[in-house]
Amino acid sequence: MSNDQIKIPKGFILTGVAAGIARKKGKLDVGLIYARQPCTAAALFTTNKVKAAPILLSQRHIAKGQVQAVVVNSGNANACTGTQGINTAWESAKLTAAGLQVKPEQVIVASTGVIGVPLPFEKLKKGIEKAIEKIKLSSARCHLLSDFSRSIMTTDTIPKIVSVNFMASGKKAMITGVAKGSGMIHPSMATMLVFIMTDAVVGKDFLKIALKNSVEQSFNMLTVDGDTSTNDMVLVMASGQAGNKSIMVQSRDSEVFAQKLRQVSQGLTKMIARDGEGATKLVEVVVNGARDFTAAKKVAMAVAKSSLVKTALFGNDPNWGRIVAAIGYSGENINPDSIDIAIVAGNRKIHMCRNGVDSGFSETRARQLLRGKELKILINLKQGRAAAVVYTCDFTHGYIDINASYRT
Amino acid sequence: MSNDQIKIPKGFILTGVAAGIARKKGKLDVGLIYARQPCTAAALFTTNKVKAAPILLSQRHIAKGQVQAVVVNSGNANACTGTQGINTAWESAKLTAAGLQVKPEQVIVASTGVIGVPLPFEKLKKGIEKAIEKIKLSSARCHLLSDFSRSIMTTDTIPKIVSVNFMASGKKAMITGVAKGSGMIHPSMATMLVFIMTDAVVGKDFLKIALKNSVEQSFNMLTVDGDTSTNDMVLVMASGQAGNKSIMVQSRDSEVFAQKLRQVSQGLTKMIARDGEGATKLVEVVVNGARDFTAAKKVAMAVAKSSLVKTALFGNDPNWGRIVAAIGYSGENINPDSIDIAIVAGNRKIHMCRNGVDSGFSETRARQLLRGKELKILINLKQGRAAAVVYTCDFTHGYIDINASYRT
Repeated sequence: MSNDQIKIPKGFILTGVAAGIARKKGKLDVGLIYARQPCTAAALFTTNKVKAAPILLSQRHIAKGQVQAVVVNSGNANACTGTQGINTAWESAKLTAAGLQVKPEQVIVASTGVIGVPLPFEKLKKGIEKAIEKIKLSSARCHLLSDFSRSIMTTDTIPKIVSVNFMASGKKAMITGVAKGSGMIHPSMATMLVFIMTDAVVGKDFLKIALKNSVEQSFNMLTVDGDTSTNDMVLVMASGQAGNKSIMVQSRDSEVFAQKLRQVSQGLTKMIARDGEGATKLVEVVVNGARDFTAAKKVAMAVAKSSLVKTALFGNDPNWGRIVAAIGYSGENINPDSIDIAIVAGNRKIHMCRNGVDSGFSETRARQLLRGKELKILINLKQGRAAAVVYTCDFTHGYIDINASYRT
Repeated sequence: MSNDQIKIPKGFILTGVAAGIARKKGKLDVGLIYARQPCTAAALFTTNKVKAAPILLSQRHIAKGQVQAVVVNSGNANACTGTQGINTAWESAKLTAAGLQVKPEQVIVASTGVIGVPLPFEKLKKGIEKAIEKIKLSSARCHLLSDFSRSIMTTDTIPKIVSVNFMASGKKAMITGVAKGSGMIHPSMATMLVFIMTDAVVGKDFLKIALKNSVEQSFNMLTVDGDTSTNDMVLVMASGQAGNKSIMVQSRDSEVFAQKLRQVSQGLTKMIARDGEGATKLVEVVVNGARDFTAAKKVAMAVAKSSLVKTALFGNDPNWGRIVAAIGYSGENINPDSIDIAIVAGNRKIHMCRNGVDSGFSETRARQLLRGKELKILINLKQGRAAAVVYTCDFTHGYIDINASYRT
């Protein structure tokens, strides 16, 4: 069994095909997930007031509670496309349903790419038909997780898959998540495109709660460029093929499931931050000593969103003054004279600022440390006991290049 | 009389000298404004919780209501510098006061530059002494407005001066404003460094109200990079040398004064946006048809702050989908299906989006229009009658270059 097959929870088949929707010739741009049985499912969607057609459709479908297929295209967001866009999303759900012999209401539709351009339905249709054919030809666990993960990519440079195993009431179970996301990343109660599959038996109510909690501590703590997409979605599907006792609120396995789901979500969150458009570094902003979680998150987000902090990180510049400035305008009632700031790379740590003033650190050593590809900025507000971690990346010429010419 | 002299309201003398505080050799970095008589004055300061030492000092001084001198340095922000920083600010006020024979409490101190590095007082002292000497040598209206405006620049590429004339109760009067600002620009109830002088006689209470209203419609409607500085200040001083009847709330000239003050403030605001770090374009985001001003401002700010919108503007890409996405996440309860978006350059206008969908515009013509150096993005929400204008610029490689290596 290939490494890829090992990662697919029981009950799911995935594939990805090239349909000519993406600009780049031959790029996989239509992905399909098929579950052999209807899955218990939960989802969160973008809070952007402008919602793409597939989001509006999928919100209605998820409300029915069960999902058996997911059809995704990249290269076109099907957002701001009016009635035509709604029709295209609905037709693709119907087409997928007919081909896989499931109900159209059990098909989730997702799109990602350029906003405001009609999605070419004829191309999408051919892609869906090709994908269905592939699914039908494949064995129980299809080896095409990799193809699916590539089919949903846009400016992503790497596919993003995280998989974990665990035991539930003596049965082996698995959670696997696949994500896309690189730019327009500033999730707000929801996220970019994330599809999480598990073969565990999970109660619907608990699945909803577990997803919400997990997203709160992962995708909602992520920012690449401060822009919240019109197409964000995170979906979790439980096929129930692991044969464990159903995991419910307060049941024995609920804690381990929640923890594993968080692990998958946080793993994907870090992969998205590291692959942020033009990024050269993964940066974790860790705030400690805050009055409460909301305060900690606000401060961490302000630092993680600051263009000045992010360009300094790109330039390996230990310019902690910009970090203090961002803390100061975060909107939280912080005490400037109690702020500590340190940077960490691997097992090296340098304190830059103690009680709001320069700690007398070595500039040369700090520059050296900032060359690391995985950095932590540790902030202690010394006002309480709450903490928060926000994931981000540096801000580089690559971002400008990608976004000054995204459509050309 | 030189053009420069013409711009200085009666009663003020200005100068700028090089003191070796800025990194660039020979750069003017200490500026001084001296008023022959104590001025009625009003000021607004940054709302950043982290406030630089000169801000803390000047807040106390302005509370006394009269100002006779302003001493400014660039190259070092004197922020996050602890007790030492407070002492440095106070010593420079005392030194200026002694040299000009005014009260230390009537001296406003301002600094701009790197945060967290002690301000070298010996250099500043020599600069202040040199500036005082120059002031004493000069005639009634010093010809060094230009030197002052250069002495407060950091990453600014052009000095920023706006001057207007008007009549008040039959007397000729003038308002002249000088500003610095290019990066870390996202004023919030206050602004970057702005010094406004008038020779009109103006009542203190009215001056305060007029300043606040004027800032609301100018500097508070400006964003370059979303970062709010620790050192922002806008100061207005009225020398009263024009000899008009004092302008008070509801007096005959109050409207013309308010309008002229707004004209100066908006002129400087546009100059700051146009000179935003790395900027190649001045962009006005105009929102119409909003429910109220707060809603209009929120939507305009979201669009003006969006890294994706700003990089598209740099790339001449008519990617209106990013504008719609920003409107959608602004936090306002907009209706996606009623949004109109157009771009304007000079007297040319292209509608890109009508009622939330593509208008079928010519991509080629739109790209051509976007090459303009002064652009307007017109947004109509069709939900009410309120409007707002936010000033910003495009987001370019220049910004990354400047900020990845600001201190090196």
